[in-house]
Amino acid sequence: MHPYLWGDPAQAVALPEAATSALAHLGATAGAEPVAVSDIALPEPALPGPARAAITDAVGADHVSSDHDARIAHTRGWSTPDLLRLRAGDATDAPDAVVCPGTHEEVLAVLSACSRHRIAVVPFCGGTSVVGGLNPARDGFAGVIALDLRRMDGLLAVDPVSRTATLQAGVRGPHAERLLSEHGLTLGHFPQSYEGASIGGYAAARSAGQSSAGYGRFDEMVVGIVLATPSGTVELGSAPMSAAGPDLRQLVLGSEGALGVITSVTVRVRPAPEQRVYEGWRFPSFEAGAAALRRLAQDGPLPTVLRLSDEAETAVNLADPGGALGGGPGGCLAIVGHEGSAVSGRQAAVREILLDLGGEPLGPEPGEAWREGRFRAPYLRDPLLSAGALVETLETATFWSNLPALRTAVTDALTGALAAQGTPALVLCHISHVYETGASLYFTVVCAQKPDAVAQWREAKAAANAAIRGAGATITHHHGVGTDHRATYAEEIGPLAVDVLRSVKRTVDPAGVLNPGVLLS
Amino acid sequence: MHPYLWGDPAQAVALPEAATSALAHLGATAGAEPVAVSDIALPEPALPGPARAAITDAVGADHVSSDHDARIAHTRGWSTPDLLRLRAGDATDAPDAVVCPGTHEEVLAVLSACSRHRIAVVPFCGGTSVVGGLNPARDGFAGVIALDLRRMDGLLAVDPVSRTATLQAGVRGPHAERLLSEHGLTLGHFPQSYEGASIGGYAAARSAGQSSAGYGRFDEMVVGIVLATPSGTVELGSAPMSAAGPDLRQLVLGSEGALGVITSVTVRVRPAPEQRVYEGWRFPSFEAGAAALRRLAQDGPLPTVLRLSDEAETAVNLADPGGALGGGPGGCLAIVGHEGSAVSGRQAAVREILLDLGGEPLGPEPGEAWREGRFRAPYLRDPLLSAGALVETLETATFWSNLPALRTAVTDALTGALAAQGTPALVLCHISHVYETGASLYFTVVCAQKPDAVAQWREAKAAANAAIRGAGATITHHHGVGTDHRATYAEEIGPLAVDVLRSVKRTVDPAGVLNPGVLLS
Repeated sequence: MHPYLWGDPAQAVALPEAATSALAHLGATAGAEPVAVSDIALPEPALPGPARAAITDAVGADHVSSDHDARIAHTRGWSTPDLLRLRAGDATDAPDAVVCPGTHEEVLAVLSACSRHRIAVVPFCGGTSVVGGLNPARDGFAGVIALDLRRMDGLLAVDPVSRTATLQAGVRGPHAERLLSEHGLTLGHFPQSYEGASIGGYAAARSAGQSSAGYGRFDEMVVGIVLATPSGTVELGSAPMSAAGPDLRQLVLGSEGALGVITSVTVRVRPAPEQRVYEGWRFPSFEAGAAALRRLAQDGPLPTVLRLSDEAETAVNLADPGGALGGGPGGCLAIVGHEGSAVSGRQAAVREILLDLGGEPLGPEPGEAWREGRFRAPYLRDPLLSAGALVETLETATFWSNLPALRTAVTDALTGALAAQGTPALVLCHISHVYETGASLYFTVVCAQKPDAVAQWREAKAAANAAIRGAGATITHHHGVGTDHRATYAEEIGPLAVDVLRSVKRTVDPAGVLNPGVLLS
Repeated sequence: MHPYLWGDPAQAVALPEAATSALAHLGATAGAEPVAVSDIALPEPALPGPARAAITDAVGADHVSSDHDARIAHTRGWSTPDLLRLRAGDATDAPDAVVCPGTHEEVLAVLSACSRHRIAVVPFCGGTSVVGGLNPARDGFAGVIALDLRRMDGLLAVDPVSRTATLQAGVRGPHAERLLSEHGLTLGHFPQSYEGASIGGYAAARSAGQSSAGYGRFDEMVVGIVLATPSGTVELGSAPMSAAGPDLRQLVLGSEGALGVITSVTVRVRPAPEQRVYEGWRFPSFEAGAAALRRLAQDGPLPTVLRLSDEAETAVNLADPGGALGGGPGGCLAIVGHEGSAVSGRQAAVREILLDLGGEPLGPEPGEAWREGRFRAPYLRDPLLSAGALVETLETATFWSNLPALRTAVTDALTGALAAQGTPALVLCHISHVYETGASLYFTVVCAQKPDAVAQWREAKAAANAAIRGAGATITHHHGVGTDHRATYAEEIGPLAVDVLRSVKRTVDPAGVLNPGVLLS
């Protein structure tokens, strides 16, 4: 992967004509072209000799690199501020070395060496964090390594009777599907970062995929987990569910590398679907569409994919490079997808409910167009940034009764904060994950870049965070906490819960070397 | 409730004729009649004056009692060893006082007072623990109180749009259903302890009800939770699901009063069902029946209730006082229940699958008989104990592929350990909770009592625990850890996970007064 361009370089897209004129309307003028990777200056690698020797002892010399490109490729994640800084040639917080262990035991050995030598460790799988999850605090450490799990990319076990599979943390999304397809199985986890992200990252950040209505969130798929920490190993998952104390799997899930390195995960898998049917529906308003989604989430039947764009997102369809998502004559577009075997009965039942609730069927075209393009949308960010636009996303979740107020509050906060800076913004929103008791909201923001676009976004994001907390919603539904959400996260769970997490961290990571500054300050 | 008789005294049952002759066959001769409650001797209440004054300050004098009957009613829980000791007049570990706070703030004040004065606190809701969850270590403390939450039994909020309800911890099962039915809603949580247990206990012990296939486990119902600890309050649940760090709700669920006192819980609720249809099915073998349950759990549609008795349980039908459960000509009885609105479609689809997998429909009679009698089975324990039988249950869970081996291992361990003591046993088993990846196993054991029946059971239970751990299964699916499972639980999660829990406990309960010895030693 390229250090600051999304995904597979072969799939890069140009900006559609409509976007260019929309940007002109927003006042965006051509932005700075990014500094070439080879021209990015790096600080000297700071790893002291004895630390480097101990780490090399643990994994072998072939698997420790301080190569220029490797260090840059492991600098921060994929948030817009992360990319803006790298595009501007700022790699000041590059790791001193990239370390690639091959086994759980090697991970333990690296953690032990880093604890002894006060080296901060950034667990790195896909490297796709959009919340500063790979931007550790360097202060007080003798160096920083990225612990890249890419060599640990095997399928360790399949239990077709129990429908479970054990995957190593470094297995990326498409590779997991390839490995499982040989057994006629699927994980069914398709986050937008699918092409880059990996099993360990899904688990560490409580990922939710686009098919969460049908396949569940990643934290719902996990039945077993193995965690390497400086204090040793934790291995959990004696049964699908248990009353044996707290569910500690759910303490490891979402721990974002701050409490240990997840080295493998046992997940619930499903038979690979025989059929995939996607449809578009139009609702007269976001409220009407949300009511329809709620009805399906609460009373069923639940499609595999269920999404609803608000009026602004439906009109712009920025998320679709091809413009085929049914944008146009107002209303709100919903995508309804069914996967499995013999889906026609469920499809018919869902249709009846949606018709009954005011939905207008748009046929398979918008659905299939969404499915085709669903991993392509983020590729637009790079040409948008080059065209002088600031584009970023954020997300939250709440209970159904609070959803309309939350959407309004966040939209107003973002619009207001950016207008106040002289850069009026387009704010688009969709529901992409539904539960019986509530749903997520995902916002996309586009406006003209100011000279200091990182500070510009920081201000808008702070306003959105305040609106989210003011509405009593969660600061993140599936992106995670990282460093960007840390302060708001602490408010959300309260000081005693933060102390609880700190005490856990002290136990598993007495030297505090694991992803310092991520999750906890 | 009576201190050592199950449930509502008005519903006490006599032993059916068949049971009496079966007991004779097992060598049971009439056991000792229990000591009358008024004749049970109690140690002097040990609460020091200043501690008592501080606690009285917190809740008012009307809500602190060292009354003889109140203390006995709060002595231990409802396991057979607990009852045997109380029946024999042993109330040596009665609490020194029973304290009934009325608000969350009063709970905080009591915890603060007890921390200052080194008084152990046993959070007490329904008092139905069957794993020694109410039997605290007294050593090192100046006294022990039972913190009875019975006054906190209100419905605090209902959100019909989001389908959530906030219930105080002291609300018992039937009262919760009454409160919710006024809003046309149900919780759908019906553990066998339903008549006695309460919301706080469901949460603290990760309860699973008999309708878990349809309504989920209690830990799956909880979206919000408020915990009082000596260090302050933790309030969790900003959204149905979140990626904001570890899911700390799942750290509180299953904490069994050792990490705090749950004072209220926000749960997902459902519309009260319009229809309830229960059926019996017979399968030629446990394996055939288990395969059918697995098919429904993995591919759907999932009934609301789904249970399968093994050959021994089917033949004996000890669980059914009326003997109407279709016991007789061999095979294994399954109970299949559907609740909701318009259940006929699902019922028909399930029937087709069960027929296809070798099930023989027995019609509604065995199903309705099970539904009628489902809370009555435990009432048999009292007359069985009086008739000289030792009767107890235990449960576990594992993944589907391991289920047959686990059932054999546990059955053999129990049978062997009791035969070795000269008391051949009947060991009955059923599946009562299913998941995509596995299921629970519930064992009922009956044999003749030896003079020291507590020691006799301890030996059998140790053999069962070893078999469960040997098979890699969990030590408890829905009864909890308490003091009885503590050692095996520590083996199951491993020493580092135990250290993690200890560090959490130190943070929320620095004086270690919360349910000492429960969950953690």
